[in-house]
Amino acid sequence: MKLLVIVSLLSFLTATAMQATEAQTSSEGYLVHTVFFWFHEDVSEAESENFYEELQKLKQIDNILHGWIGVPAATEERGVIDNTYDYSITFVFEDEAAEHEYQVHPDHKRFIETNSHLWQNVVVYDAITPQSSDN
Amino acid sequence: MKLLVIVSLLSFLTATAMQATEAQTSSEGYLVHTVFFWFHEDVSEAESENFYEELQKLKQIDNILHGWIGVPAATEERGVIDNTYDYSITFVFEDEAAEHEYQVHPDHKRFIETNSHLWQNVVVYDAITPQSSDN
Repeated sequence: MKLLVIVSLLSFLTATAMQATEAQTSSEGYLVHTVFFWFHEDVSEAESENFYEELQKLKQIDNILHGWIGVPAATEERGVIDNTYDYSITFVFEDEAAEHEYQVHPDHKRFIETNSHLWQNVVVYDAITPQSSDN
Repeated sequence: MKLLVIVSLLSFLTATAMQATEAQTSSEGYLVHTVFFWFHEDVSEAESENFYEELQKLKQIDNILHGWIGVPAATEERGVIDNTYDYSITFVFEDEAAEHEYQVHPDHKRFIETNSHLWQNVVVYDAITPQSSDN
Protein backbone atom coordinates (compact mmCIF):
# COMPACT_ATOMS: atom_id res chain seq x y z
CA MET A 1 0.00 0.00 0.00
CA LYS A 2 2.83 2.35 0.94
CA LEU A 3 4.53 1.48 -2.36
CA LEU A 4 1.34 2.31 -4.27
CA VAL A 5 1.22 5.78 -2.70
CA ILE A 6 4.85 6.35 -3.62
CA VAL A 7 4.30 5.17 -7.19
CA SER A 8 1.31 7.54 -7.47
CA LEU A 9 3.44 10.38 -6.16
CA LEU A 10 6.18 9.52 -8.65
CA SER A 11 3.78 9.58 -11.60
CA PHE A 12 2.28 12.85 -10.35
CA LEU A 13 5.74 14.44 -10.19
CA THR A 14 6.67 13.10 -13.62
CA ALA A 15 3.42 14.51 -15.06
CA THR A 16 4.19 17.87 -13.41
CA ALA A 17 7.66 17.91 -14.96
CA MET A 18 6.18 17.06 -18.37
CA GLN A 19 3.58 19.81 -18.11
CA ALA A 20 6.33 22.31 -17.30
CA THR A 21 8.10 21.24 -20.48
CA GLU A 22 4.94 21.46 -22.58
CA ALA A 23 4.22 24.97 -21.32
CA GLN A 24 7.47 26.10 -22.94
CA THR A 25 6.51 24.96 -26.42
CA SER A 26 2.76 25.58 -26.60
CA SER A 27 2.13 28.65 -28.71
CA GLU A 28 -1.54 29.49 -29.33
CA GLY A 29 -3.28 32.62 -28.11
CA TYR A 30 -0.31 34.11 -26.24
CA LEU A 31 0.42 37.83 -26.25
CA VAL A 32 4.07 38.73 -26.86
CA HIS A 33 4.71 42.29 -25.69
CA THR A 34 8.01 43.66 -27.02
CA VAL A 35 9.27 47.15 -26.23
CA PHE A 36 12.40 48.96 -27.40
CA PHE A 37 13.72 51.96 -25.50
CA TRP A 38 16.03 54.62 -26.92
CA PHE A 39 17.57 56.86 -24.26
CA HIS A 40 18.24 60.56 -24.46
CA GLU A 41 21.89 61.13 -25.31
CA ASP A 42 22.75 62.54 -21.89
CA VAL A 43 21.67 59.46 -19.89
CA SER A 44 24.60 58.39 -17.71
CA GLU A 45 25.97 54.90 -17.16
CA ALA A 46 24.61 54.97 -13.61
CA GLU A 47 21.14 55.95 -14.83
CA SER A 48 21.31 53.16 -17.42
CA GLU A 49 22.24 50.59 -14.76
CA ASN A 50 19.46 51.84 -12.53
CA PHE A 51 17.02 51.53 -15.44
CA TYR A 52 18.06 47.91 -15.88
CA GLU A 53 17.26 47.29 -12.22
CA GLU A 54 13.89 48.96 -12.71
CA LEU A 55 13.19 46.63 -15.64
CA GLN A 56 14.09 43.66 -13.46
CA LYS A 57 11.53 44.83 -10.89
CA LEU A 58 8.96 45.33 -13.65
CA LYS A 59 9.54 41.74 -14.80
CA GLN A 60 8.39 40.54 -11.37
CA ILE A 61 4.76 41.49 -12.10
CA ASP A 62 3.14 38.18 -11.53
CA ASN A 63 1.12 37.59 -14.68
CA ILE A 64 4.23 37.69 -16.90
CA LEU A 65 4.73 34.08 -18.03
CA HIS A 66 8.16 34.65 -19.56
CA GLY A 67 10.22 37.80 -19.38
CA TRP A 68 13.51 38.81 -20.95
CA ILE A 69 15.34 42.11 -20.67
CA GLY A 70 17.78 42.76 -23.49
CA VAL A 71 20.51 44.96 -24.85
CA PRO A 72 21.70 44.78 -28.46
CA ALA A 73 23.73 41.63 -29.01
CA ALA A 74 27.02 41.69 -30.84
CA THR A 75 25.66 39.49 -33.62
CA GLU A 76 26.96 40.06 -37.12
CA GLU A 77 26.15 43.39 -38.74
CA ARG A 78 23.42 43.00 -41.32
CA GLY A 79 21.40 45.74 -42.93
CA VAL A 80 18.15 44.36 -41.54
CA ILE A 81 19.31 44.41 -37.90
CA ASP A 82 18.34 47.34 -35.71
CA ASN A 83 20.82 47.55 -32.84
CA THR A 84 20.39 51.25 -32.07
CA TYR A 85 18.15 50.86 -29.00
CA ASP A 86 19.40 50.91 -25.42
CA TYR A 87 17.13 48.29 -23.82
CA SER A 88 14.40 45.92 -24.86
CA ILE A 89 11.85 43.88 -22.97
CA THR A 90 10.03 40.80 -24.20
CA PHE A 91 7.19 39.85 -21.87
CA VAL A 92 4.89 36.95 -22.73
CA PHE A 93 1.35 36.81 -21.37
CA GLU A 94 -1.26 34.06 -21.33
CA ASP A 95 -3.57 36.21 -23.45
CA GLU A 96 -4.58 39.79 -24.26
CA ALA A 97 -6.54 40.17 -21.02
CA ALA A 98 -3.43 39.37 -18.98
CA GLU A 99 -1.44 41.95 -20.91
CA HIS A 100 -4.13 44.53 -20.19
CA GLU A 101 -3.92 43.74 -16.47
CA TYR A 102 -0.19 44.36 -16.71
CA GLN A 103 -0.75 47.72 -18.47
CA VAL A 104 -2.90 48.98 -15.59
CA HIS A 105 -0.87 47.33 -12.82
CA PRO A 106 0.34 49.93 -10.24
CA ASP A 107 3.96 48.71 -10.56
CA HIS A 108 3.84 49.24 -14.32
CA LYS A 109 2.35 52.71 -13.94
CA ARG A 110 4.97 53.58 -11.34
CA PHE A 111 7.71 52.32 -13.68
CA ILE A 112 6.55 54.67 -16.45
CA GLU A 113 6.21 57.66 -14.11
CA THR A 114 9.66 57.08 -12.61
CA ASN A 115 11.58 56.35 -15.79
CA SER A 116 9.94 57.93 -18.81
CA HIS A 117 12.21 60.97 -18.59
CA LEU A 118 15.11 58.73 -19.67
CA TRP A 119 13.84 57.72 -23.10
CA GLN A 120 13.50 59.86 -26.18
CA ASN A 121 11.72 57.10 -28.08
CA VAL A 122 9.86 53.92 -27.26
CA VAL A 123 8.25 51.47 -29.69
CA VAL A 124 5.83 48.76 -28.60
CA TYR A 125 4.85 45.62 -30.53
CA ASP A 126 1.93 43.58 -29.19
CA ALA A 127 1.85 40.35 -31.16
CA ILE A 128 -0.68 37.62 -30.62
CA THR A 129 -0.01 34.04 -31.62
CA PRO A 130 -2.75 32.95 -34.06
CA GLN A 131 -5.19 30.32 -32.83
CA SER A 132 -5.03 28.58 -36.18
CA SER A 133 -3.51 29.04 -39.61
CA ASP A 134 -6.72 30.84 -40.67
CA ASN A 135 -5.86 33.87 -38.52
CA MET B 1 16.98 0.51 1.92
CA LYS B 2 14.29 0.33 -0.75
CA LEU B 3 12.59 3.33 0.86
CA LEU B 4 15.85 5.27 0.76
CA VAL B 5 16.14 4.66 -3.00
CA ILE B 6 12.56 5.82 -3.50
CA VAL B 7 13.08 8.93 -1.38
CA SER B 8 16.20 9.73 -3.44
CA LEU B 9 14.21 9.26 -6.64
CA LEU B 10 11.48 11.53 -5.31
CA SER B 11 13.90 14.30 -4.45
CA PHE B 12 15.58 13.91 -7.85
CA LEU B 13 12.22 14.26 -9.61
CA THR B 14 11.26 17.23 -7.45
CA ALA B 15 14.57 18.90 -8.31
CA THR B 16 13.96 18.19 -12.01
CA ALA B 17 10.49 19.72 -11.81
CA MET B 18 11.94 22.78 -10.05
CA GLN B 19 14.66 23.14 -12.66
CA ALA B 20 12.02 23.04 -15.39
CA THR B 21 10.22 25.89 -13.63
CA GLU B 22 13.42 27.86 -13.16
CA ALA B 23 14.31 27.48 -16.82
CA GLN B 24 11.21 29.49 -17.68
CA THR B 25 12.15 32.44 -15.53
CA SER B 26 15.95 32.45 -15.62
CA SER B 27 17.09 35.28 -17.81
CA GLU B 28 20.85 35.63 -18.11
CA GLY B 29 22.79 35.28 -21.33
CA TYR B 30 19.84 34.34 -23.56
CA LEU B 31 19.51 35.68 -27.09
CA VAL B 32 16.03 36.95 -27.99
CA HIS B 33 15.70 37.14 -31.78
CA THR B 34 12.67 39.20 -32.86
CA VAL B 35 11.76 39.79 -36.49
CA PHE B 36 8.94 41.84 -38.01
CA PHE B 37 7.81 41.22 -41.59
CA TRP B 38 5.94 43.70 -43.77
CA PHE B 39 4.46 42.14 -46.90
CA HIS B 40 4.21 43.65 -50.35
CA GLU B 41 0.73 45.02 -50.88
CA ASP B 42 -0.23 42.40 -53.45
CA VAL B 43 0.36 39.39 -51.15
CA SER B 44 -2.83 37.31 -51.14
CA GLU B 45 -4.62 35.76 -48.17
CA ALA B 46 -3.55 32.31 -49.36
CA GLU B 47 0.08 33.41 -49.58
CA SER B 48 -0.19 34.90 -46.09
CA GLU B 49 -1.60 31.65 -44.69
CA ASN B 50 1.13 29.69 -46.42
CA PHE B 51 3.73 32.03 -44.93
CA TYR B 52 2.33 31.33 -41.47
CA GLU B 53 2.79 27.61 -42.10
CA GLU B 54 6.35 28.28 -43.24
CA LEU B 55 6.99 30.15 -39.98
CA GLN B 56 5.62 27.21 -38.03
CA LYS B 57 8.08 24.91 -39.82
CA LEU B 58 10.89 27.39 -39.12
CA LYS B 59 10.01 27.31 -35.43
CA GLN B 60 10.76 23.57 -35.39
CA ILE B 61 14.51 24.17 -35.75
CA ASP B 62 15.72 22.34 -32.74
CA ASN B 63 17.90 24.86 -30.94
CA ILE B 64 15.00 27.31 -30.49
CA LEU B 65 14.20 27.22 -26.76
CA HIS B 66 10.98 29.22 -27.02
CA GLY B 67 9.27 30.34 -30.19
CA TRP B 68 6.23 32.50 -30.85
CA ILE B 69 4.76 33.56 -34.17
CA GLY B 70 2.64 36.68 -33.97
CA VAL B 71 0.27 38.98 -35.78
CA PRO B 72 -0.63 42.44 -34.45
CA ALA B 73 -2.95 42.10 -31.47
CA ALA B 74 -6.07 44.20 -31.15
CA THR B 75 -4.74 45.91 -28.03
CA GLU B 76 -5.70 49.51 -27.45
CA GLU B 77 -4.42 52.06 -29.95
CA ARG B 78 -1.58 54.05 -28.46
CA GLY B 79 0.87 56.25 -30.32
CA VAL B 80 3.83 54.13 -29.25
CA ILE B 81 2.42 50.87 -30.65
CA ASP B 82 3.53 49.70 -34.08
CA ASN B 83 0.86 47.36 -35.46
CA THR B 84 1.65 47.85 -39.15
CA TYR B 85 3.59 44.60 -39.67
CA ASP B 86 2.07 41.41 -41.07
CA TYR B 87 3.91 38.78 -39.00
CA SER B 88 6.44 38.65 -36.21
CA ILE B 89 8.59 35.91 -34.76
CA THR B 90 10.15 35.82 -31.32
CA PHE B 91 12.69 33.01 -31.02
CA VAL B 92 14.71 32.60 -27.82
CA PHE B 93 18.10 30.87 -27.90
CA GLU B 94 20.40 29.62 -25.15
CA ASP B 95 23.09 32.08 -26.25
CA GLU B 96 24.53 33.94 -29.23
CA ALA B 97 26.26 30.82 -30.56
CA ALA B 98 22.94 28.97 -30.74
CA GLU B 99 21.40 31.87 -32.65
CA HIS B 100 24.29 31.79 -35.10
CA GLU B 101 23.70 28.05 -35.67
CA TYR B 102 20.09 28.90 -36.46
CA GLN B 103 21.15 31.60 -38.94
CA VAL B 104 23.21 29.12 -40.96
CA HIS B 105 20.79 26.19 -40.54
CA PRO B 106 19.69 24.79 -43.95
CA ASP B 107 16.00 25.07 -42.98
CA HIS B 108 16.46 28.77 -42.16
CA LYS B 109 18.28 29.42 -45.43
CA ARG B 110 15.58 27.56 -47.33
CA PHE B 111 12.90 29.63 -45.55
CA ILE B 112 14.53 32.88 -46.71
CA GLU B 113 15.02 31.66 -50.28
CA THR B 114 11.44 30.45 -50.55
CA ASN B 115 9.69 33.40 -48.88
CA SER B 116 11.73 36.56 -49.19
CA HIS B 117 9.77 37.64 -52.31
CA LEU B 118 6.73 38.21 -50.04
CA TRP B 119 8.15 40.92 -47.81
CA GLN B 120 8.97 44.50 -48.72
CA ASN B 121 10.57 45.13 -45.34
CA VAL B 122 11.99 43.10 -42.50
CA VAL B 123 13.52 44.36 -39.25
CA VAL B 124 15.53 42.16 -36.90
CA TYR B 125 16.29 42.79 -33.23
CA ASP B 126 18.87 40.53 -31.57
CA ALA B 127 18.74 41.27 -27.85
CA ILE B 128 20.92 39.58 -25.29
CA THR B 129 19.95 39.38 -21.65
CA PRO B 130 22.70 40.99 -19.58
CA GLN B 131 24.78 38.71 -17.36
CA SER B 132 24.64 41.24 -14.54
CA SER B 133 23.42 44.74 -13.89
CA ASP B 134 26.86 46.01 -14.94
CA ASN B 135 26.22 45.07 -18.58
